[in-house]
Amino acid sequence: MNLALKNRFLCFFICLTILSLFLCSVSLEAEEALVKQTKGDGNWVERWKPIEMFRWWDPAHYFEPDNKVQGVFEAEKCVTCHTVVTPGITNEWKKSTHSFAGVTCDKCHGSDHQKIEMPAPDDCAECHPEQVKDFKSEKETDNSSHARAFHANGVDEGLQGNKQQPETAGFALRNAIENKCDSCHFRHRFDAAEARQPEACSYCHNGPGHRETEYYNTSAHGAITKIDGDNWDWDKPLKVGNYRAPTCAYCHMYKGTHNTVENAVYANKGVQEEVDSKAKEFVEKRKAWLNICNDCHSTRFASAYLRDADETVKVSFAKVKEAKTIIEELQKSGRLDPMPKHLPSSPDERNRGDLGGRLNNVSVIEREFIDMNNYHTETIFPSVFHMSVNLQTNEFGTYKQDQSLARIKAEASKLGLLKVLEEKVGAKYEEYDFWKVVEFPNFLKVVK
Amino acid sequence: MNLALKNRFLCFFICLTILSLFLCSVSLEAEEALVKQTKGDGNWVERWKPIEMFRWWDPAHYFEPDNKVQGVFEAEKCVTCHTVVTPGITNEWKKSTHSFAGVTCDKCHGSDHQKIEMPAPDDCAECHPEQVKDFKSEKETDNSSHARAFHANGVDEGLQGNKQQPETAGFALRNAIENKCDSCHFRHRFDAAEARQPEACSYCHNGPGHRETEYYNTSAHGAITKIDGDNWDWDKPLKVGNYRAPTCAYCHMYKGTHNTVENAVYANKGVQEEVDSKAKEFVEKRKAWLNICNDCHSTRFASAYLRDADETVKVSFAKVKEAKTIIEELQKSGRLDPMPKHLPSSPDERNRGDLGGRLNNVSVIEREFIDMNNYHTETIFPSVFHMSVNLQTNEFGTYKQDQSLARIKAEASKLGLLKVLEEKVGAKYEEYDFWKVVEFPNFLKVVK
Amino acid sequence: MNLALKNRFLCFFICLTILSLFLCSVSLEAEEALVKQTKGDGNWVERWKPIEMFRWWDPAHYFEPDNKVQGVFEAEKCVTCHTVVTPGITNEWKKSTHSFAGVTCDKCHGSDHQKIEMPAPDDCAECHPEQVKDFKSEKETDNSSHARAFHANGVDEGLQGNKQQPETAGFALRNAIENKCDSCHFRHRFDAAEARQPEACSYCHNGPGHRETEYYNTSAHGAITKIDGDNWDWDKPLKVGNYRAPTCAYCHMYKGTHNTVENAVYANKGVQEEVDSKAKEFVEKRKAWLNICNDCHSTRFASAYLRDADETVKVSFAKVKEAKTIIEELQKSGRLDPMPKHLPSSPDERNRGDLGGRLNNVSVIEREFIDMNNYHTETIFPSVFHMSVNLQTNEFGTYKQDQSLARIKAEASKLGLLKVLEEKVGAKYEEYDFWKVVEFPNFLKVVK
Repeated sequence: MNLALKNRFLCFFICLTILSLFLCSVSLEAEEALVKQTKGDGNWVERWKPIEMFRWWDPAHYFEPDNKVQGVFEAEKCVTCHTVVTPGITNEWKKSTHSFAGVTCDKCHGSDHQKIEMPAPDDCAECHPEQVKDFKSEKETDNSSHARAFHANGVDEGLQGNKQQPETAGFALRNAIENKCDSCHFRHRFDAAEARQPEACSYCHNGPGHRETEYYNTSAHGAITKIDGDNWDWDKPLKVGNYRAPTCAYCHMYKGTHNTVENAVYANKGVQEEVDSKAKEFVEKRKAWLNICNDCHSTRFASAYLRDADETVKVSFAKVKEAKTIIEELQKSGRLDPMPKHLPSSPDERNRGDLGGRLNNVSVIEREFIDMNNYHTETIFPSVFHMSVNLQTNEFGTYKQDQSLARIKAEASKLGLLKVLEEKVGAKYEEYDFWKVVEFPNFLKVVK
Repeated sequence: MNLALKNRFLCFFICLTILSLFLCSVSLEAEEALVKQTKGDGNWVERWKPIEMFRWWDPAHYFEPDNKVQGVFEAEKCVTCHTVVTPGITNEWKKSTHSFAGVTCDKCHGSDHQKIEMPAPDDCAECHPEQVKDFKSEKETDNSSHARAFHANGVDEGLQGNKQQPETAGFALRNAIENKCDSCHFRHRFDAAEARQPEACSYCHNGPGHRETEYYNTSAHGAITKIDGDNWDWDKPLKVGNYRAPTCAYCHMYKGTHNTVENAVYANKGVQEEVDSKAKEFVEKRKAWLNICNDCHSTRFASAYLRDADETVKVSFAKVKEAKTIIEELQKSGRLDPMPKHLPSSPDERNRGDLGGRLNNVSVIEREFIDMNNYHTETIFPSVFHMSVNLQTNEFGTYKQDQSLARIKAEASKLGLLKVLEEKVGAKYEEYDFWKVVEFPNFLKVVK
Repeated sequence: MNLALKNRFLCFFICLTILSLFLCSVSLEAEEALVKQTKGDGNWVERWKPIEMFRWWDPAHYFEPDNKVQGVFEAEKCVTCHTVVTPGITNEWKKSTHSFAGVTCDKCHGSDHQKIEMPAPDDCAECHPEQVKDFKSEKETDNSSHARAFHANGVDEGLQGNKQQPETAGFALRNAIENKCDSCHFRHRFDAAEARQPEACSYCHNGPGHRETEYYNTSAHGAITKIDGDNWDWDKPLKVGNYRAPTCAYCHMYKGTHNTVENAVYANKGVQEEVDSKAKEFVEKRKAWLNICNDCHSTRFASAYLRDADETVKVSFAKVKEAKTIIEELQKSGRLDPMPKHLPSSPDERNRGDLGGRLNNVSVIEREFIDMNNYHTETIFPSVFHMSVNLQTNEFGTYKQDQSLARIKAEASKLGLLKVLEEKVGAKYEEYDFWKVVEFPNFLKVVK
C-alpha cells in the first residue's frame, strides 16, 4: 500500500466518522435551544431578541461556531470531508474563481473547526477592498441602502421595532445583505457574472415598496434582456458598449461601483412631496442619470422622458395630499374608528398618532392610506422612472391609487353620516375591546 | 414504379382522404352535442354532469373514440397521416425517447381508429410501474395530493360540489393531473428532463392557495436556478451533487420518487392551528426535511431556519384565531349581514353555517376571513418554508393578513354601531332579496 | 501618413467635436421648454396638449429635429460618430440584417442632421409594404387593435380624454405601437426572430385588462415554451411544424400576418354579454381558431374546449348583470354616495352617469363594479381561451369576481339600512365637498 493511497484511506475514514457524528446529531440539533444567543443590539435592545438565524444573517455579531467537530484541518481535508457531507457546497467552490486562485476553505472560514468563522464583508475586504469600500460608502447618504439595511433600517427603525420578532424574519433575511456578500454573489461560486444578472436582484426586489423586478420586466429594457440576455457575455464589465440593454446593475452599479445609491437613484430625494427641479441635489442626480442614459439615448430624448416622468409623479403625490387632508380632518373631529388614543400604547410614540404609522390594528381608513401612500404612490414613482409601460397606470399604480382614494372618501362619508345619526338619536359609540387589547401588538413585548 | 414509391403514394392518398374528412367535419364537429357523455360520478352525481373536456381530463372514465376514421393502422401509417393532419404531435414524438425505443402510436392508443384510446396512468404503468406506484401511493396520506386531485379533492369535495360546473373548468384542467401523466411530462415528448424543471410545476402551482412558483422565484434557490439553470444537465437524477440549487422536484421528488407528499411537505399537518413540535408525525417530517437540506446546508443551519419558521407561522395562525373570535361573536348576536340562515339552502350543509364555508354570496366580513385564512395565512406558512424573502411579510403575506384583520375589526365595529342605532330608533332591517335568491348559487342545480 | 490614416484622424476629430457639443448641451437640454411642440389633435384638442415624449411616440405628427449638429453626413460618418456618442445604438445596428443589407442610418433618418427624421410605419413600408399593410388593416375592424391604439383608443377616447395628461403617459408609451414598429422589433436590431418571442409581447400585455402574459405563463403552452423555447429556431416562419408550442405570435400572427386581430381574437365580439354561438361573425371566428388549434390538436378536442369555455364565460357575465341590477336600483332610488349629479361636470357626458364610467372619484360601489366588469370578468374570459389553469378561477378571476359581488351586495345593504335610519330620525345627509371639488378631476382642464 503506497502512501497516497494510505492518505486517501485516512481521509475517507475521518470523513466517515465526522459524517456519522453529523447524522447522529440531527435529532439532537433539532432540540438545541437559543442558549448561545447574544442579546441583540440597537434601539430596541430591551424589547427584542435575535432569532437563531441571525447567526448566519449577521455573522459578525452573532455567529459562534458549534463544538461538534474537533481538529485543525488543512484545506484539502476540508474539501475531502465536505464533498461527502455537503457536496452542494464543495461542488460550487470547485467551479469558482476562488478555487482556481487558491482561495481555499480555510482562507475565509479558518482551519480550527471549533473556531470556524462565517465571513462578513470586512473579511471579504481583505481581497476585495474597493468593492467593500464602495458598498460601505452607501451609509454616507440618507437613503435606505444595502449597507444600512439590517441595522439602521431593520433593527433600529421600521418593522423590527414595530412587529413581533418572528413576523419580521423575512425582512431580516432580505436585509442581511448589509452583513454578507453572498446575498448577491451566491455561495460558493461568488461569481460577478451572476451577480450582474437581473435575477440576482429580483429575488429581493419584488413586491410592495420595491417592485423593481416588476417595473423592469414590463419595460422594453427588460424585454430585450429576457429575449437576448442568454447570448450576452456577463463577464464583461458594466461599461458602455458591453451590454445591449441596461440591467439593474448596469445603471445602479454603473462602471462597477458597489455603491448602488450614488448614481441612478433618487430614493425619496426631491420627489417625496413635489419635484423641485431646481434643487442642487436634484440637478446633480439628474445629470448623473442622463450620463447613463446617454450610453444609448440622446440627451434630448432622455431628459424629455425624465421631465415628463416628474409630472406624472406630481399628480400622484397630489392625490396623496388630498387623502391626507380628509383623514386629518377625521382625526381632529374625533370620527376615526378607533381613534389613536384608544390604541395600545407604543414604545415608539412616533408610531402612535402618525397618519398611517402602523401596519396593523389601525382604522380601516388609515390602513387604506398606507396602501395609497406607501405602496401605490411608491409604485407609480419608480415605475415611471423604470419605463414600465403598465405599472405606473395599471395594476399597482394609478388605478389602485384612485381606488384607495375613492375608498377613503366613501369611508369618510360614512363615518360622517354615522356621527350625524349618533348625535341625532343620542347613541354613544364606544370602541370595541378588540382595538384596545391585541395579542400581537404593533410593538414588541419586553424580552423575558 | 418500384414498390416503396408505390407504398408512399398509397400512404399519401389515404392520408389526404382522411385529412379531407377531418376538414369537412370542422363545422359538423362544432355542432356536436354532449350525447355520448356518461353521467359522471362521485358524491354529487345527481347534481352535476361532466363537461365535454372530461373526455381528455379523465380519459379512463370518460373518453370514447369518435367514429369518423375507419380502419386498423400500423404504426408507420399513423405517423405518415398525422404528420400531415397534426404535425405538432408527430414532430414531438419523433424527438422522444419513446420514438427511439420503438414505442409507436399504437402502443398507447391502439391501432383500430374507431377504438382509439387515451392513455391514463394505468396504461403508462405497463412500462413505468415504479413511477405510477409511487404516484398512487400519495392516496395513502390525508394530504391533498396529485393522485387525489381530480376525484377526492375535485369531484367529491370542494369547489366541484359548491359551484356551477362551467366555473370549475379551470380546477378540473388543473386537477386532471390525477388522470394523465402528461400534465408534467408534456406530450408527445414525455421527457423526464423537462418535468424536472420548475416551469413544469409552475404553470399550475401559482396563485392563491398554491403560490409555490412565487415563493421559489423570490428565494435565493430560485434566483440561482434562473441564472444558472440553463447550464445544467437536467437528464441527471435528482440526487445529491447533481444540481447546484434545489428545484421543486429536487426536494419534493427527492431521489426521483413520484410521491410528492412523502418528503418535504407538511401540507396542513401539525401547523394548521399551532406547531406541535413534539408530535411524532411532525418530528418525522422534520427529519425527512433536514435530510434533504443537508445536501447543501449543515443540520445546524437548516434546523435553526425551520425552528424560526415555526414561530412565524404561529403568529400568523394567532391572528386568524383573533379574527375568528370576532366573527363568531357576530354570528351569535345575529349581527352578520346576511345571517347564514337567510342564505339559500345548500345540499352540502357543512357549507352553510361554517365560517367562511362559501366563496361567494356570503357576508363581506366572512369573505374577508376567507382571504385571511385560506390565502394570506396559507401564503405566509409555505412562503417561510420556501425561503421566500418577501412573500411571508409583503404582498400576499403578513401585510395583507394585517389588512384583512383591520377590515374585519372595522366591519365588526360598524355592524355593532348600526345595531345600536337600529335599536335606538326602532328600525328593523331585513335582508335584501339579492342575498336570498341568486342566479348562480353556491350549490349545483339538479342536472336536467 | 497615408490617406486612410488621415481620414480616420479626420473622422475622429469631427466626432470628438460633436461629442463635446453634446456633452456641453446636457444642462442646456435639461432646461429646454416645450416651445417646439405642436398643439395635439383628436376629440380633445382644446383640452389637452401632448407631452414632450410624443416627439418619439408619434414621430409622424410630433417629431421635429433639433438644430444642434449641422451638416450632411454620409452613412459611414454617422456610424463613426455615433459609435462614440451612443455606442448602444450602433452596436445593435451592426448586428442587424439592415446592416448586412446596406440599410444604413441615412436610409431611415436622412442625412442632413438638422432635418433628421424618426421613422414611422409609413417609412418602414417602403421596404416592408406587406407587413405595414397587414398592420394597418387592423383599423378595418371594430376591435381595439395595435393600429388604432394611440389615436382612436388613446387620444380620442378612453383614458386620454378622462385623465390628466401626465397620468396617462404610461398608456401613451404603450399605445405608441400604432406609430412605430420598434415597439416589437427592438431598435436597432429590428429582428423578426426577437419579435416572435413571447417576451416581445409581454412587456405590454400584462396587468389588468390585458393579462395575456399571465394567462400564457399559467398554461401548458407557456410552460413548454419556457422550458424548451431556448432550443428553438426563432428565425423560422410561424407555420405548422416549425414550433413545438404555440406562442403569442404563432396564433395571433398566424402564418406571419401583421394583422393581429384577424385570426384568434374575439375581443368583445359575440361574448360581451352572452355567447351567441350562431352569429355569423362568431362562427367564422371560431372556424379560424379551430384551424390554428388543428396544427396540434384534433378538431374534436379543440372545439370541445372552446364550447366549454363559452359556458364559463356565460356564468361570468351573468354575475356582472346581477351586480349591475343592484347598482342601477341604488341609482334610481338616490342612495348612491355620491350620486352622479353631485360629481363635477365632465366634457364627456357619456362618462358622467354611466355605470362605472369613471375610474376615480366615484362611489365605492361603482368602483367595485369597474373591478368586477373591466378587470375580473375580462380576466376570466381571455384566461379560459388561453388555457390558463389558474387565472380563470383563482387570483384575478372568479375568486375576485365573487368577492366584488359580495362587496357590492354588502355595500348596497348598508346604504339601504342607512337610508332607513336617516328617514326614521329625520337626518339629511349631504355629499361632502371632497366629492364635488377635486384637484385632479376625471376630465382635463382646458389647456392654458
